[in-house]
Amino acid sequence: MPSKYLNFRNSVPWLIFFLEAVFIIPFYFLSPGDGVPRSNISYSAFQDVSHMVIFGLGFFLAFQKRYGFSSTGFNLLIVVLGVQWSVLMEGLLIFFFFPSFFYYSITKAVVSMTAVVISSAAVLGKANPIQLIVMTIVEIAAFRLSSWINTSYLKVEESISMMHVHLFGAYFGLAVSRFFSEPSPNLEKNASTPKSELLSMLGTVFLWVFWPSFNSVLAVKDKNTIIYNTYLALAVSAVTAFALSVMTTKDGKLRMTHIHSATLAGGVTIGYAAHSIQHPWIAMILGLLAGVIAILGSHCLQRCLNPVLRIHDASGVHFTFGLPGVLGALARVILCVI
Amino acid sequence: MPSKYLNFRNSVPWLIFFLEAVFIIPFYFLSPGDGVPRSNISYSAFQDVSHMVIFGLGFFLAFQKRYGFSSTGFNLLIVVLGVQWSVLMEGLLIFFFFPSFFYYSITKAVVSMTAVVISSAAVLGKANPIQLIVMTIVEIAAFRLSSWINTSYLKVEESISMMHVHLFGAYFGLAVSRFFSEPSPNLEKNASTPKSELLSMLGTVFLWVFWPSFNSVLAVKDKNTIIYNTYLALAVSAVTAFALSVMTTKDGKLRMTHIHSATLAGGVTIGYAAHSIQHPWIAMILGLLAGVIAILGSHCLQRCLNPVLRIHDASGVHFTFGLPGVLGALARVILCVI
Amino acid sequence: MPSKYLNFRNSVPWLIFFLEAVFIIPFYFLSPGDGVPRSNISYSAFQDVSHMVIFGLGFFLAFQKRYGFSSTGFNLLIVVLGVQWSVLMEGLLIFFFFPSFFYYSITKAVVSMTAVVISSAAVLGKANPIQLIVMTIVEIAAFRLSSWINTSYLKVEESISMMHVHLFGAYFGLAVSRFFSEPSPNLEKNASTPKSELLSMLGTVFLWVFWPSFNSVLAVKDKNTIIYNTYLALAVSAVTAFALSVMTTKDGKLRMTHIHSATLAGGVTIGYAAHSIQHPWIAMILGLLAGVIAILGSHCLQRCLNPVLRIHDASGVHFTFGLPGVLGALARVILCVI
Repeated sequence: MPSKYLNFRNSVPWLIFFLEAVFIIPFYFLSPGDGVPRSNISYSAFQDVSHMVIFGLGFFLAFQKRYGFSSTGFNLLIVVLGVQWSVLMEGLLIFFFFPSFFYYSITKAVVSMTAVVISSAAVLGKANPIQLIVMTIVEIAAFRLSSWINTSYLKVEESISMMHVHLFGAYFGLAVSRFFSEPSPNLEKNASTPKSELLSMLGTVFLWVFWPSFNSVLAVKDKNTIIYNTYLALAVSAVTAFALSVMTTKDGKLRMTHIHSATLAGGVTIGYAAHSIQHPWIAMILGLLAGVIAILGSHCLQRCLNPVLRIHDASGVHFTFGLPGVLGALARVILCVI
Repeated sequence: MPSKYLNFRNSVPWLIFFLEAVFIIPFYFLSPGDGVPRSNISYSAFQDVSHMVIFGLGFFLAFQKRYGFSSTGFNLLIVVLGVQWSVLMEGLLIFFFFPSFFYYSITKAVVSMTAVVISSAAVLGKANPIQLIVMTIVEIAAFRLSSWINTSYLKVEESISMMHVHLFGAYFGLAVSRFFSEPSPNLEKNASTPKSELLSMLGTVFLWVFWPSFNSVLAVKDKNTIIYNTYLALAVSAVTAFALSVMTTKDGKLRMTHIHSATLAGGVTIGYAAHSIQHPWIAMILGLLAGVIAILGSHCLQRCLNPVLRIHDASGVHFTFGLPGVLGALARVILCVI
Repeated sequence: MPSKYLNFRNSVPWLIFFLEAVFIIPFYFLSPGDGVPRSNISYSAFQDVSHMVIFGLGFFLAFQKRYGFSSTGFNLLIVVLGVQWSVLMEGLLIFFFFPSFFYYSITKAVVSMTAVVISSAAVLGKANPIQLIVMTIVEIAAFRLSSWINTSYLKVEESISMMHVHLFGAYFGLAVSRFFSEPSPNLEKNASTPKSELLSMLGTVFLWVFWPSFNSVLAVKDKNTIIYNTYLALAVSAVTAFALSVMTTKDGKLRMTHIHSATLAGGVTIGYAAHSIQHPWIAMILGLLAGVIAILGSHCLQRCLNPVLRIHDASGVHFTFGLPGVLGALARVILCVI
C-alpha cells in the first residue's frame, strides 16, 4: 500500500458505502419468484468453493512477510464485494432473483471472484484499496461478459463456460500490473521468510485438496469423472513440481515458490477438459506437462521475458495460472479435434 | 495464567478426573433405546459446527502473542469437557440416551459450548485452568436452563431457542471478568504481533465461512433461507468493517482487531431472525448495522464505558458478540411486530 | 536433510520421473470397465480423509522449527506418490481399473498413506528425499500385503482390515529409524518454538476434528456407531491428556507435546473396535486408557526404554501411534472374547 493513508480515510469508506447502497437497493426491487430452474449444487459443494477462495487463496498469497494482512484481509474484502456485484449482475440479467436459484448464482459469483483474486495477486503490494475495489468491479463485469459470450456465441457448454477463469485472471492482472511502477528489486517488503512461506504452504495445501470441488462444482453431469481426472492431474503435477524444483536450482535444494505454483498447475490445466477425458493416463500426462510448464516458466519468465516486457509479476501468477491455462486450452482443442 | 503452577499440579488433574468419572458413570446406567425421534442433522453439518468451534474459535482467539497455546489448547479442553457435560444434561433430561439421537444431542452440546468459549475469551489470560473448568460447568448448566425456559415458558421455537448463545456468552463472560483484577495496561503479554494476528485472521476467515452452517444447523425447515440470509449479512458486515475501520482510525490504516470483530457481527445479528426474513435487502441492512455497531462499539466502549464500569474485556467480546446480539434480538422483535 | 544436496539434483528428479512413468504406463493398458461393485464412499467422506492426511498430518508434524517445510512439503510429495502407487497396486490386483470404483480405491490408498506419513515422522530430519521415496514404495507394498493377509487368511472384515495402519506405521518407522545415526541431542535444528508448536496445534486440532471420518470411511455399516464411539473416545483422551500433562511435569505446566500426542491417542485406540462397541461408557474408558498410555509412554519411553534400545524417535510416534494401537488391538481381542 502506498504511504498516503490519510487520503484513504476520506475516500475508501465512501466508495465502499456507495457500492453497498448500489448493491442493496436493487435487491429491494427484485422480488423473489417461484418456479425457477433448481440447481444441483449442494450447500457443501458451494461451501468447498467458498472456503477455497476465501481461506485457501487468502493464505496462498500470504507468502510475503509484510503483506500477510493485505493478502488475507483485502482478499476477504474484494471477494465479498465482488460476490455481491456478481450476484447482482446475474440477478439483473435474469431480471428476477430466485431464492431457490441462490446456490447456483452465488457459486458462479464465487468462481468468478477467483479471476479477481488472481489479478490482485499480480499487483500485490502495489495497488491501494481503491484501485483494488475499482479493479474488482471492472474485472467482474468483463469476466461475466466473456463468460456470456462463451455460452451465447461460441456455444461453449454452460458448465465449462467459466473454466477460463484462471487464464482471464492471470492476464488481466498482468495487464493491470503494467500501470504500476516496478518496485526496487531489493525492497525488503517483498522478502519472504520461512514462517510466511509456511503459512503460504497452508493455503497451497488447502487449495490442492479442494481443487476437484472447484472444477466440478458447476458441472451438471460427469461430476465424478471431473473429480477423478482433476485429482490425478493434481497428483502428477505435485510430484513433477518436486522433481523439477530440485533439478532447476543450482544448489539442488527445493524452492518453496516452485512447489506453491507447480502443485496447482495440474488443476488449472485440467479444468477445460476434465469432463471429456476418458482415460486416466491422459489426465496424468496433462498434469505432468502442467508441472513442467509452471516450473520452466518460473525459471525462464522471471529471468528473460519479464524484464523485456517490463512486467513485474509480484506473485508469479503468469506461470502459476497463466501458462497452465494456455496449456489447458490447447489440450481441450486437441482433444476436441481427436 | 497466574504463576503458582505447582498448586495446579495437585488440583487440576484430580478435578478433571473427578469430572470424567461423573461423566462416564451415568453413561453406564443409561442404556441405548430404540424408537427415538430421528434428527435431520447430518454428519457433515455437525462436523462443520464442531470444526468451527474447535478450530475456528481456537485460532480466532490466538491473537495475543503469549496466549497462543492457552487459546487453542484450553479451548480444546473446555470444549470437550463441556460437550460431555452438555450431552449428559440432555441425556438426564430425557432420561434415556438414544444413539440415533446422537447428532442432535451432540450438535446442541457443541452449539452451547460457543457461549463458554466466548466467555472464556473475556477472561483470556486472567483465569487459571481450574477457574475455566468450573466456569464451563456452571455456564453450561445456566445456558441449558435459559434455553429450556425459552422453549417451555416463552414458547420460542426449538430451533432458535439457542440463538442467544453469543449474547449469553458475552455478558456471562463480562460478568465473570469483574471478579478478576485488571492487568496493568502496559503488560507485554497482552501485546499482539503481526504473526499472531495473522493466525487469528486464519480463525476469523474460518468462522466467516462456516457461520451459515452454525446458524442453520439446528433448524428443522427453511435451512436454505437461513444459509442465504446469513451469507448476505456476513458479506455486508465484512465490507462495512473495512470501510469503518479506515474511517475511525486516526492514521487511516486498517486495524486487524476491527476486521476480526466486525466481519462476524453480521452472523451474530442475523441468528435470531434469519429463518423469517423473506427479502434479501433486510438481511443486508441488518449486516450493515451489525458492522457499524461492532466498530463503533469497539471505538466507544474501550475508551468511555469500560473504564467507568470497571470492565476489562480481554478480547473485545462485548462489541464482537454482545452488542450485535442485542441488535439481533431487537430486530427479531421488530420483525415479529411487523 | 543431509548436506550433499548436489547429488540429489542428479538423482531425485530421475527417480521421481521413473516412478511417474511406472505409474502412468499401466493406466494406459488398464481400460475402464463397467458393472463394478459400487462403493458407498461419498466424495465428501473421501475429501475429509484426504484433507486430514495432507493438511492435518502435514501441519501436525511441523513442530520443529527447522523442518516446517520438510514436514508439509515432503508430506505432500510422499502422499501423492504413495497414493498413485497404492491405486496402481489395487488396480493390478483386480486387474481392471474401474472408474466407478474410484473413491473406494483412492480412499484406501489415502488411508494406507497414513502409515507412511507416520513412519516418515519417526525419521523426520534424518532421511533424505530419496530414502523417503524408497521407504514410501516399500512400505505401501508391505502394508497392502499385510492388509491382504488380514482379509484372506485372518478373516478380518474388509472394513477394519486397514485399522492397524497406525500400529504398522509406527513400528515400521521405528525399525527404519534404527538405520539412521542418532543426531546429537543438543542439535539446534530439533528445537521447537512456540510459533512452530502453534502451527502443529493447528494440525492436531484438524486431525482431532476429522478423526471420526477417518475411522468410519471404509466401514460399510454402522457408520454412525463408529463416528459416535470415536468422538467420545477422542473427547475423553483429550481431557485425560490435559490432566496427566499437568501431573507429570515437574513445574505443573502443560507440555504442548503431551497434548499433541495424547489428544489423538483415543482415536487410534478405538479404531479396531469402534463398530462393535454398544455402550458409550466402554468407548470413554478406552479413550481414558489411551490418554494415560500415551502420556506415561512419553514420560517413560523417552527416558528409559529408548536409550536402551537405541531408538531415536524424532516425533514421538511410538507413544502417539504405537502404544495406543497396541492397546486398541488388545481391547478388540478382549471385546471379541466377551
